[in-house]
Amino acid sequence: MKCRRCGAEAVIELPQHRTAFCADCFLHHCRNQVRRSIDSYHMIDNTERPLVAVSGGKDSLAAWDLLLELGYQADGVYLGLGIGEYSDRSGEYARDFARQRDLTLIEIDLATDAGFTIPQAAAQRRTPCSACGLSKRHLLNKIALDHGYRVLVTGHNLDDEAAVLFGNVTRWDLRYLARQQPVLTEQDGFARRVKPLVRLSERDTAAYCVIRGIDYQVEECPLAAGNRHLGYKELLNQMEERTPGAKMDFYNGFQRRMRPLLDSIATKEKGELNPCDQCGSPTTGRLCAFCRLTEQTTKPGRPAESSPR
Amino acid sequence: MKCRRCGAEAVIELPQHRTAFCADCFLHHCRNQVRRSIDSYHMIDNTERPLVAVSGGKDSLAAWDLLLELGYQADGVYLGLGIGEYSDRSGEYARDFARQRDLTLIEIDLATDAGFTIPQAAAQRRTPCSACGLSKRHLLNKIALDHGYRVLVTGHNLDDEAAVLFGNVTRWDLRYLARQQPVLTEQDGFARRVKPLVRLSERDTAAYCVIRGIDYQVEECPLAAGNRHLGYKELLNQMEERTPGAKMDFYNGFQRRMRPLLDSIATKEKGELNPCDQCGSPTTGRLCAFCRLTEQTTKPGRPAESSPR
Repeated sequence: MKCRRCGAEAVIELPQHRTAFCADCFLHHCRNQVRRSIDSYHMIDNTERPLVAVSGGKDSLAAWDLLLELGYQADGVYLGLGIGEYSDRSGEYARDFARQRDLTLIEIDLATDAGFTIPQAAAQRRTPCSACGLSKRHLLNKIALDHGYRVLVTGHNLDDEAAVLFGNVTRWDLRYLARQQPVLTEQDGFARRVKPLVRLSERDTAAYCVIRGIDYQVEECPLAAGNRHLGYKELLNQMEERTPGAKMDFYNGFQRRMRPLLDSIATKEKGELNPCDQCGSPTTGRLCAFCRLTEQTTKPGRPAESSPR
Repeated sequence: MKCRRCGAEAVIELPQHRTAFCADCFLHHCRNQVRRSIDSYHMIDNTERPLVAVSGGKDSLAAWDLLLELGYQADGVYLGLGIGEYSDRSGEYARDFARQRDLTLIEIDLATDAGFTIPQAAAQRRTPCSACGLSKRHLLNKIALDHGYRVLVTGHNLDDEAAVLFGNVTRWDLRYLARQQPVLTEQDGFARRVKPLVRLSERDTAAYCVIRGIDYQVEECPLAAGNRHLGYKELLNQMEERTPGAKMDFYNGFQRRMRPLLDSIATKEKGELNPCDQCGSPTTGRLCAFCRLTEQTTKPGRPAESSPR
């Protein structure tokens, strides 16, 4: 099998694009895909210094590396979640990546900053993943704003985004569907959140790291095992197996054809935001969802409230 | 396990409803579900005599039986598709059902009426299933109108409808999504088409037939093996296995929350209809899709046109 770009021996086949590449041309392809996402969704200005949320896994490290390769002065932020050895090792991968390349890595720690870990929060909420997602969204946004970054980059790839979309479609929750975008625009109290890897699959980012010699945390989070999101990924993988490109069509078709219909809802649904009594973050209630979670977790025994963002 | 309605020993568990029934109460449940569909979507007036499209399989025979049980004077129509022994046996089941109950069964035959069979048409089109669907839609509608029936009933169940929806969602074809309704309203040249089994699963209709002593064609159509639709059904079954009720939520959520958004498109997309030069059926072109298929199949060698309805 030959590389479609240069004719050399190919090392990776990409059935979703009906193509194959040698190592160098595959890296070129990945940079290209990220470039296209950034440009077509106006993710990052050339003058901006983006902050990459780094977990130590393949996606976020690939995102950081790709942004640097594309010429952005990207810094990183690592949030320690307190998930035992898994978090310890994840932090090491993030620190090693930054140290080897002499990059700025901001470190924050959930236990130190908020007084609880994800396993502790999970005891108060239905799933650890929802407590984790909420904590990450809140603290990473806060750190970005506190340090003057206007754009926060996450490593969500096509598989992640397609799986979230799939989950939202099974329930037809139009508010969630309306919010599913590769860019969440900057607004008062929120940095712009961008996902430049939406054109790369999980397999792509893994191959990218291997070819680039990036060491990453290979283990899945032990608390995520068996969650719905992974179930949706499995179903989408079966679809992709039968019809290569199905995942891409599903996600891109949604963005192209369905999102325009949903935009009216997104605008209507935005409630009035005011500062959280506790931390000042924008929220529709008195306390933001993260401060409610913190209260529930650090002062157990109080009645839990339902907690939309 | 006890029947939730009467407390007798249950014979069937319905995890999607978190319930179980004895044989009698299960039949009551099925009638109830069909009654609810008919009423909430205004499918059939009490004064109307519906025509049921009967294939000889479990769904259409259950539909016919259920309408009779609910007090409708329903007649049947059987269309012979010419798929070898499979069609021969299917016709027998339909005829036996009608004969045993002294019902009116209109019979038509694709080979006699249009000069070709599905296997012959399949040679001209991409998949046999698309030629078959087109032929059934066209001829069953024609027969209904020719015999003065205003409403044509099909046995599509929840699994069928959810799988079609799933397929349309994977491509986000909004025109197809907009058309996916349990009732397609009556209009010039089209009888109303209704699907009163949308609240019953495939497993429900099979159990219904077994309990009611209805003999039906158990074999799947040999030409359908491996088609996409069956692939989508498999994926949905896996979802249902993990989360009982997922299929129902997916389909009902679409009808309740998504359809209103799509209605504007459905109205916009309706092109001007005029009578087909050949058969008089409403079409947007000169020849309707069925007459084009007939031409391609009976006069091979002519160039094929693309064929929307």
